[in-house]
Amino acid sequence: MPPDLLALTADLIAIPSLSLKETAIADFVEARLAERAPSLDCIRVGDNVIARTNSGHERRLLVGGHLDTVPADQNENPRIEGDSLFGLGAADMIEGDSLFGLGAADMKGGLAVMLTLAEAAHALSARLRLDLTVVFYVAEEITEEHNGLRVLFAEHPNLVSADLAILMEPTGAWVEAGCQGSLTVEATFTGVRAHSARPWMGDNAIHSASKALANIAAHNSDSVIVDGLEYRESIQVVHFEGGVANNVVPDSARMRINRRFAPAYDTETALAQVSALLEGATSVVVINESPAAPPNLMNPLIAEFIGTNDLAVRPKLGWTDVARFTSHGIPALNFGPGNPEIAHTRGEFVERVELDACYAVLARFIGVI
Amino acid sequence: MPPDLLALTADLIAIPSLSLKETAIADFVEARLAERAPSLDCIRVGDNVIARTNSGHERRLLVGGHLDTVPADQNENPRIEGDSLFGLGAADMIEGDSLFGLGAADMKGGLAVMLTLAEAAHALSARLRLDLTVVFYVAEEITEEHNGLRVLFAEHPNLVSADLAILMEPTGAWVEAGCQGSLTVEATFTGVRAHSARPWMGDNAIHSASKALANIAAHNSDSVIVDGLEYRESIQVVHFEGGVANNVVPDSARMRINRRFAPAYDTETALAQVSALLEGATSVVVINESPAAPPNLMNPLIAEFIGTNDLAVRPKLGWTDVARFTSHGIPALNFGPGNPEIAHTRGEFVERVELDACYAVLARFIGVI
Repeated sequence: MPPDLLALTADLIAIPSLSLKETAIADFVEARLAERAPSLDCIRVGDNVIARTNSGHERRLLVGGHLDTVPADQNENPRIEGDSLFGLGAADMIEGDSLFGLGAADMKGGLAVMLTLAEAAHALSARLRLDLTVVFYVAEEITEEHNGLRVLFAEHPNLVSADLAILMEPTGAWVEAGCQGSLTVEATFTGVRAHSARPWMGDNAIHSASKALANIAAHNSDSVIVDGLEYRESIQVVHFEGGVANNVVPDSARMRINRRFAPAYDTETALAQVSALLEGATSVVVINESPAAPPNLMNPLIAEFIGTNDLAVRPKLGWTDVARFTSHGIPALNFGPGNPEIAHTRGEFVERVELDACYAVLARFIGVI
Repeated sequence: MPPDLLALTADLIAIPSLSLKETAIADFVEARLAERAPSLDCIRVGDNVIARTNSGHERRLLVGGHLDTVPADQNENPRIEGDSLFGLGAADMIEGDSLFGLGAADMKGGLAVMLTLAEAAHALSARLRLDLTVVFYVAEEITEEHNGLRVLFAEHPNLVSADLAILMEPTGAWVEAGCQGSLTVEATFTGVRAHSARPWMGDNAIHSASKALANIAAHNSDSVIVDGLEYRESIQVVHFEGGVANNVVPDSARMRINRRFAPAYDTETALAQVSALLEGATSVVVINESPAAPPNLMNPLIAEFIGTNDLAVRPKLGWTDVARFTSHGIPALNFGPGNPEIAHTRGEFVERVELDACYAVLARFIGVI
């Protein structure tokens, strides 16, 4: 019987871990592994924590999850509720079924599963059918330069090598295959300052951005089929800023755009798509580019993982670090508790039944149940 | 022979006086008046400086100017140049004809004229044909609550009472009659946060602002005739801000709009005009409202000032504190050195010939030349 995964998730939510502020939660993870999974090699690199079995198996499974969350939105505190929210009457309520709070879905539920899996690999090491690496890493929610996996691949590639990588991003316990690419650009619009009572002497940079904003707001993104999976693309203005003073025609405005694109083409093509919408921009600078990853469903280990557990498969719409593993030649997929559609929303939550289900699939795959 | 007005203006530009940071320039003004115009009553209220003759004349002229400037735009340092910029060849250049720098036009040139006028009223007090008040006041370039004249009218109305008020805002030595009203509102657009890979789960607040922005950018403002003068209206987005993180659909965006309207209707009407363009706004809040002032050309003192000096008259497009004097029953007009169309631009400047001309008109009107 594994420990109470919902309670462990609540403990993890109660430790704030905004990107670049993961020290407290890394301390918690490291201490818990030292206490409950001492036979695993545990390595800390910055605030990244890696724990590995070394039982000499031919194959190694890596299970990874990021420690950080997006900024809080009045949801800092974990709150456990019955499932009355899901259409059942009071008579059907089971106390403690759902857990709300920042990171419940993305992805402290997954971290709880990973910790518990490492403890089982320690306690039942004789039953392992492959070696296990768990990787808790920093700064997945912000720009690429800070990403803990990027650092580990660059500086300690042996710690993150494996035959299959499973990222515990929220998928609702589906296999979400591959991932869409993500491209963030900043467009600058330039004008000429003037007194706002005589705007014809200047050129309003915010007004100059109106066509680009309208183009993006009106853009109907496509759905693209790859390996039989339908990837639904998107484009969003995620930041807009401009202005000098209430009586000054502004000479500069900056618009940040995030584009998600199917694993059917490269980032250069995505950039060309976005640039075509940015009518009137003075410059377009790439802030972050993360390539898409193909679904890779024909890979033998992925096929075994899906087939043995009879898991449902769908495309991953958000970018995840599966693309990083794929680009380093390691087959990878997303599989974790939590509804991906509520990630980054104030009301994100995770359900006990999904935590238990994800744990059972992974524990069975490595042989400990 | 008055002192070198261009050199005095340069001295005033060299003292930074961003709104709410006018202490240094108020100290300079107060010390100079104490030294050079000691017979005037000089009163300091905060960083406002008022100096008054008390010769018992039936009529009193008030000349006012604000001490503050908008933020610098790489033009902090005063720079005197010849007039080659104005199409003359090198052989025609006269060294020291033009002065560039923050506030040259708006309105440190006017302050130099006021200081010099006060000195003449001291030195030649026997020749005065009316009493003189000079008012150097703070925070004209920012929101109404900070405006020095507002404070003086509220707390020391006797210090600012007069039979005619002349504001030395830049008018190119024209009489600029009345002034347009100014209305600043903040429109908020509200959405629902979501992961940017699944924007259909949320509602992008920046996208929601695109129609309002397009409406304003496309709006062709009217020209309105009052007392035979043509007031050219305008509407500008002066600030726009929204965004949470590069991978989050933003749930809030704020747009600030400045509307300038002819002295033909009130601020409620102006607000209705603006609100009609703000399609999709969740709320519209008035940040600042300054009523328009009618031209008042039939007033006897204004007619005398214009007629005696044979001055050219045009409408004032920017809001100025003439509206405040008018609303307190004091006839008022704008008359000062500097081109109003370059106020608040990086390249603002003032010419020696205009400083001298404005000084001569005012000195003649009070009787000291």
